[in-house]
Amino acid sequence: MADLSQILLDTESGVPLYRQLADSIRGLIDRGILQNGQRLPATRELANQLKLNRATVSAAYNMLEQSGVLEGHVGRGSFIAAKARDLSAKPMNSVDWDGMLGPLEYAAGPATEVEINLATSRPAAANFPLAAFRKLAKEVVDSPEALPILQLGSPHGYGPLRHYLMEEAIQSNVARNGDDLLMTNGCQQALDLIARLFLPVDVSPSAKAVVLESPVYHGLLRVFSRAGASVIPVPVDQAGMDISALDAVLTRSQARLMVVTPSFQNPTGATLSLERRKRLLEVTQQTGTIVIENDIYSELRYKGAYLPTLKELDTAGNVILLRSYSKVSFPGLRVGWVLGPGPVIARLAESKQICDLHSDQLSQAVLLRFAQSGELALHLDRTRGEGLKRLETVLSACERYLPKGSSYTRPEGGMCLWIELPAPLNAESVLPRAEKRGVSYLPGNLFSSRPAHRRGLRVSFGALTPEQITNGIQRIAEAALEELDMLALRSRLEPFTAVV
Amino acid sequence: MADLSQILLDTESGVPLYRQLADSIRGLIDRGILQNGQRLPATRELANQLKLNRATVSAAYNMLEQSGVLEGHVGRGSFIAAKARDLSAKPMNSVDWDGMLGPLEYAAGPATEVEINLATSRPAAANFPLAAFRKLAKEVVDSPEALPILQLGSPHGYGPLRHYLMEEAIQSNVARNGDDLLMTNGCQQALDLIARLFLPVDVSPSAKAVVLESPVYHGLLRVFSRAGASVIPVPVDQAGMDISALDAVLTRSQARLMVVTPSFQNPTGATLSLERRKRLLEVTQQTGTIVIENDIYSELRYKGAYLPTLKELDTAGNVILLRSYSKVSFPGLRVGWVLGPGPVIARLAESKQICDLHSDQLSQAVLLRFAQSGELALHLDRTRGEGLKRLETVLSACERYLPKGSSYTRPEGGMCLWIELPAPLNAESVLPRAEKRGVSYLPGNLFSSRPAHRRGLRVSFGALTPEQITNGIQRIAEAALEELDMLALRSRLEPFTAVV
Repeated sequence: MADLSQILLDTESGVPLYRQLADSIRGLIDRGILQNGQRLPATRELANQLKLNRATVSAAYNMLEQSGVLEGHVGRGSFIAAKARDLSAKPMNSVDWDGMLGPLEYAAGPATEVEINLATSRPAAANFPLAAFRKLAKEVVDSPEALPILQLGSPHGYGPLRHYLMEEAIQSNVARNGDDLLMTNGCQQALDLIARLFLPVDVSPSAKAVVLESPVYHGLLRVFSRAGASVIPVPVDQAGMDISALDAVLTRSQARLMVVTPSFQNPTGATLSLERRKRLLEVTQQTGTIVIENDIYSELRYKGAYLPTLKELDTAGNVILLRSYSKVSFPGLRVGWVLGPGPVIARLAESKQICDLHSDQLSQAVLLRFAQSGELALHLDRTRGEGLKRLETVLSACERYLPKGSSYTRPEGGMCLWIELPAPLNAESVLPRAEKRGVSYLPGNLFSSRPAHRRGLRVSFGALTPEQITNGIQRIAEAALEELDMLALRSRLEPFTAVV
Repeated sequence: MADLSQILLDTESGVPLYRQLADSIRGLIDRGILQNGQRLPATRELANQLKLNRATVSAAYNMLEQSGVLEGHVGRGSFIAAKARDLSAKPMNSVDWDGMLGPLEYAAGPATEVEINLATSRPAAANFPLAAFRKLAKEVVDSPEALPILQLGSPHGYGPLRHYLMEEAIQSNVARNGDDLLMTNGCQQALDLIARLFLPVDVSPSAKAVVLESPVYHGLLRVFSRAGASVIPVPVDQAGMDISALDAVLTRSQARLMVVTPSFQNPTGATLSLERRKRLLEVTQQTGTIVIENDIYSELRYKGAYLPTLKELDTAGNVILLRSYSKVSFPGLRVGWVLGPGPVIARLAESKQICDLHSDQLSQAVLLRFAQSGELALHLDRTRGEGLKRLETVLSACERYLPKGSSYTRPEGGMCLWIELPAPLNAESVLPRAEKRGVSYLPGNLFSSRPAHRRGLRVSFGALTPEQITNGIQRIAEAALEELDMLALRSRLEPFTAVV
């Protein structure tokens, strides 16, 4: 049996202990101290020797197993794989990929799992209607449709779902004469296809302007910045995008493309008022601006009155509507769609075919059945009930705990809310203090292409229990107050500048 | 009952008759000649009146139903929808989308369904192991894994499948130390992510060169031409890419990125010999060229000896491997992956997140079970048996029927074969004659970025019965002979040029 008791780990290094342990074991193999085929101590035993949590040792062993260095045999323990040495000894890639490819830029979401995750915008898995999903998925799999589902499909999407959604759009007065519909992998792909269509690579950078809300969902921002667009921000307040600012921007700039999330915008939760919806359409029609309406949250209204989509109100035909089942049902199934003028959909479908041929058909078929059976409507009813509780909880926690001088939005639905901490606080500096308290959120600077929103932060309450939400807000408030104290202390310690 | 007997259709116009009929009916509604709620004649009746095929009338009615103009009532017939007039009367979109967006360019595959489709590269649905799929899919749906499958996932892919594939790659000596793996929506998305990583929008066109085989799969070509790359073609013969030509190209040009399909290349079916594989690696290592190895067909070997992938033979770490379940199992489930150096995979995952967050998890979980249960291996065995029959059939049909002077490749696996017709034939001109005989194929000019391969054509035999294959090749041969006769006739009719 291999002796690993001499391994030294550095609890202060910031590198997770399981990774340090795995690296150490790999190092012993490389140096020939551990031999191929040798048995490692059991996780409990090594944990005792090294004064580690047993889970840490298990994680290290798992990591080594996954990369082929260890082999686990049930009931016998973990062994150094026969070819572990060879694998470790193989030369690393000789290409300097990091040098060639530049830095990694996009890592949204918290790096480590925290107790209360207010950073990720997703629905609560505990509320998934698992029994209905299982029943309907099995019906789909057993149906004669299984064969066409498994065969190569159309770039436009799974025919029966596409027809169902088009019918629904016609019935609800959302579709116009000449409109068509394209299925996408959630709304994210729809945005990417649109960016690539309206801001193609061969257009000069000055012609690639797009108007976005500010703050705006980081994933939406990334789509357009990657496409080489210059992003023109328009502020969002409690009643959505500021239309006077939009008017000024469209009159002044060359931008002829804009994206707006009229209902329960990510990250603010704000909803564009009916009056502003009408004015937005006037302004964009006057300037000939194409409006991309991101409508993935509107079904998640927990209180207040229904507002028509821009697409419904549109009289000129310059609105393209994005919808998705991912936020309102199961985000692991990637099914969204674009509804818009036929010529636009034809070109998006052409682009979709180049991107990935077509969307996966199994999930499209399952979600069609979920919608047709009425289970989606039932699930939405329940989700709205749960959502209202969450929303009221987060609002009253904000009221109760946030430090004086804070402000926050008052959404009527959706999954998130926007807090502005009082000056001189900065949400990025408060974050480590919140994470130490087991809470994460996304700081405001992620939601803008320019330095902005430093006092802002997004709180996503869609997946948490009321208790977690209250606790989470309370701990963020504590973290903010601690940072305020530290800033006050630091300013007291600041030496007077000598007068010379 | 509405009287539609006066409708006139133009059989010569090139617009499909069902579309002309639908447009005419819509026009009668717009002009108020047909009223809301009015019943239309039964399809059989109208077909008789207009001397049309009944299927044409059904297609027109279906189209109108889908766009909400007609309502079908089982047993009662089709009625003009209550709001058909409103819908038709709505103004068309005021934006000149066609003018703004330019022409649609990419319409691969035959527009109309033909009796014998040799144009589409896909497996035979009749051979799908439907019972196994149903059993395994239901197991997945019933498992405790259903919950994490339905929740938001990782851009890298569904964890258990990713680990399974990485383990398999390590076991089979394909993975190198430091390699990582990213799940994609089939191989098509992997190509798109790679094009966007290595040929980003902010790089000058001259630096965006990529070396591709010629002829090459049109979908692969499109990915790179859309990314703004200049495509440098290297010819493919019976033993795959011409390595001397590749050497010359890499020495002469700035291109540092190439894509190669070493086994059963689309469209030629050619396989790169072992000797050429080794030389390709030498040449690319010397020039520091990144090699994208498109390995989606290699499991479809029907005869001949296994050849190692470039990734296995690679000693420098400059090969990135693309694989997919779509060609070897169910193309309707879009699951492929990229195996390559960690820093490359990290950046592709970043890009994937911007493209569509992550791949659909239900199909990933089902295909993992399909692979783990051994059903994939069984299916591959059967597919190879069937594939050998198809391959032998297409080769002997080519031998027997093709006109003198034709040549064709002799693949050992895959789904397609490349025919060169004798001069002065041109595969695009022969195609309408073949389609009249109920056969389709893809003409050679689709497989190159420059005017080339005009005599070539791709025949995809993966989904057809031996009878269909034999018939298909025979009819293509007849079409080619007919075109030869016509050309001869035309040249005889050509008047002498007057000598002046």
